[in-house]
Amino acid sequence: MIKVAVLGYGTVGSGVVEVIERNNAQVSKKACDEMHVKYILDLRDFPGDPYEDRVVHDFNVIVEDPEISIVCEVMGGVGAAYQFTKACLEKGKSVCTSNKELVAKHGPELLALAKANNCNYLFEASVGGGIPIIRPLNSALTAEKIEAIFGIVNGTTNYMLTKMEREGADYKEVLKQAQALGYAEANPTADVEGHDACRKLAILLSLVTGKNVSSEDIRTEGITTVSAADFAYAKAANMTIKLLATGKVREDDSLEALVAPFMVSKDHPLAMINDVFNGVFVTGNMLGDALFYGRGAGKLPTASAVVADVVDCARHPGKTVTCFWDAEPATLADMGEATRRYFLRAKEEAKKAVEDAFGQAGTVLDESIEGEFGYMTAPMQERDFMAAYKGLGDRVLNYIRLL
Amino acid sequence: MIKVAVLGYGTVGSGVVEVIERNNAQVSKKACDEMHVKYILDLRDFPGDPYEDRVVHDFNVIVEDPEISIVCEVMGGVGAAYQFTKACLEKGKSVCTSNKELVAKHGPELLALAKANNCNYLFEASVGGGIPIIRPLNSALTAEKIEAIFGIVNGTTNYMLTKMEREGADYKEVLKQAQALGYAEANPTADVEGHDACRKLAILLSLVTGKNVSSEDIRTEGITTVSAADFAYAKAANMTIKLLATGKVREDDSLEALVAPFMVSKDHPLAMINDVFNGVFVTGNMLGDALFYGRGAGKLPTASAVVADVVDCARHPGKTVTCFWDAEPATLADMGEATRRYFLRAKEEAKKAVEDAFGQAGTVLDESIEGEFGYMTAPMQERDFMAAYKGLGDRVLNYIRLL
Repeated sequence: MIKVAVLGYGTVGSGVVEVIERNNAQVSKKACDEMHVKYILDLRDFPGDPYEDRVVHDFNVIVEDPEISIVCEVMGGVGAAYQFTKACLEKGKSVCTSNKELVAKHGPELLALAKANNCNYLFEASVGGGIPIIRPLNSALTAEKIEAIFGIVNGTTNYMLTKMEREGADYKEVLKQAQALGYAEANPTADVEGHDACRKLAILLSLVTGKNVSSEDIRTEGITTVSAADFAYAKAANMTIKLLATGKVREDDSLEALVAPFMVSKDHPLAMINDVFNGVFVTGNMLGDALFYGRGAGKLPTASAVVADVVDCARHPGKTVTCFWDAEPATLADMGEATRRYFLRAKEEAKKAVEDAFGQAGTVLDESIEGEFGYMTAPMQERDFMAAYKGLGDRVLNYIRLL
Repeated sequence: MIKVAVLGYGTVGSGVVEVIERNNAQVSKKACDEMHVKYILDLRDFPGDPYEDRVVHDFNVIVEDPEISIVCEVMGGVGAAYQFTKACLEKGKSVCTSNKELVAKHGPELLALAKANNCNYLFEASVGGGIPIIRPLNSALTAEKIEAIFGIVNGTTNYMLTKMEREGADYKEVLKQAQALGYAEANPTADVEGHDACRKLAILLSLVTGKNVSSEDIRTEGITTVSAADFAYAKAANMTIKLLATGKVREDDSLEALVAPFMVSKDHPLAMINDVFNGVFVTGNMLGDALFYGRGAGKLPTASAVVADVVDCARHPGKTVTCFWDAEPATLADMGEATRRYFLRAKEEAKKAVEDAFGQAGTVLDESIEGEFGYMTAPMQERDFMAAYKGLGDRVLNYIRLL
């Protein structure tokens, strides 16, 4: 029998227990052994909960119990979660987690610690919720030189952008609705400023390169400046707006990494990823494009990914599943050199100035918004775009990159 | 060093050699050992080919060479391919294949043989070309009770249906174009009659149930009756037509399996899978919906999947990767009980007869096609639909199921 401990009985933690209990026949079969949740660590008590007898308050009960071979860390944060994870791995107990913050911050160290102790640190649930994306990168796309990743990896902002597109609503209005529905937190910063997507991108790009990509080094722009007007122009151009986590491997193996809102053609598969769904678009040099799509968040989908990791650990007792993510830093490219098209909105009176700044190769979009116009540049370097854009001062209203 | 033999130097075989050679740095790193193609088995010689010195004509050279630990069977067919695969597995040599016909026909036997000899029989490339779908089912969605699979798994027919949709062209015309472009074979039966999709569905459903689903037991209808008129009605209803390989697990664990053209809402993610792309939509009881999308065929994408299997074998020397597919037959449900809506086309004069047969709950679609009309039924059992449809004799022109 495989005895599992769950650290944290919040949303994901209760989901993990539910998945293991409700799908016990499937999970035990796939793990080739009966699976059982022995402990649930939480500071609180849960009187009346069907599993209240398994709740313990002392982490040492778990780490000192030789029967526990696999631990699910679903507490979140980088304090106690980090200490507990290290303590488990040092004892040779595998750890499966949904904690993207901890994975992004300490991934290489914890992977090395797992390897040194012949156990595993697995984190399928840290990116894309229930969508298998970590495992495909580690174990399926192994014949590929991955050239690019474009992901919609934050459900909150994708929900908001989808609503803005469908209802013509403005950012603030939609944020309020998302908060009322529990899709956005009272302090939505981590989502709307792109920090959550940035952490997930750091994890994906670390796995793509095998080196460490620090989330702090990734240029990150959120969706707070995206307006109903931007969507009106996007719609007229048969496009939509998505918050994309993007990475491109250049010829010299340096990495273009960027989280930002992008205008995406409605014909692109990423355009059909709506509401709280996530999708990760991967381009390999042999495979071409592949897309992994599904529920990027939510109690049960996320828990399902954690439990899939538990099954993987159970199948590999005493063996570390191959994963390349060294502490050596990846080389990030100068994003000023990235070349693409840009959309911008400007005040009516700046039309000549915009055309002078960006040339006649761009396209003026005269939509029905009074006092302003939209413009799409020809392909140009980010450095040149930004210099020209800033040079226009308060005559320009917003810009969005084109995919 | 990992020494590999490739059986068959056709399209996929030459792709396998190309992937291993061109991506040798990536492949060797992921396999944790240098990978080398030692032999290529083919009856022909390839003078001038960069790898002509590796070509052998005698299978015994390969099977008797103890240095060869992994063999790629990319010959196709169920004759020599079957004999060679058995011989390799009996010698403890893992076999990786793109041969869906052989996998569908002898999967459980070959998997058992691999297990008995502590090696592997892997077949990621047999379904969905380069898209990781076999590995996600075996190793990623392990915490799920899979409830349904809906796949577009035949690139040829998807290319043809996409062209029919976009150009309003008729079936025969598009088939000729597809043959001219090499997307369809001179004898297109296996593709257009759905047999290829059926074999792939048998493989997927065997992995979902862990029991054997025989392709011969799956009701299979091809696209030969789909017409420009069908697409005109579909378009008017904001739908399109796709050849779907479908499986649903009923409450009693019996399986509804069907390959047939379906009308699909343009809002459904499967509707955006166009041209030669493939996509497999999987529904789990915890995860909800997930979609795996990419290039379902082609030399390099298919070869990439074969080589990913080679990497997996290299990572598990002397160990059989877990895969549940027993010889015990899965229980197939009576498809007559399946309940869904149906579209049909009928001659103008049959309007009253159609409404009498299918009731007022359906919808008449009066499009601009002279002398006929379309009709969509309310949800009903397949048995009842078929009886009523056949009862209308030659007054009805075609029917298509609704997703």
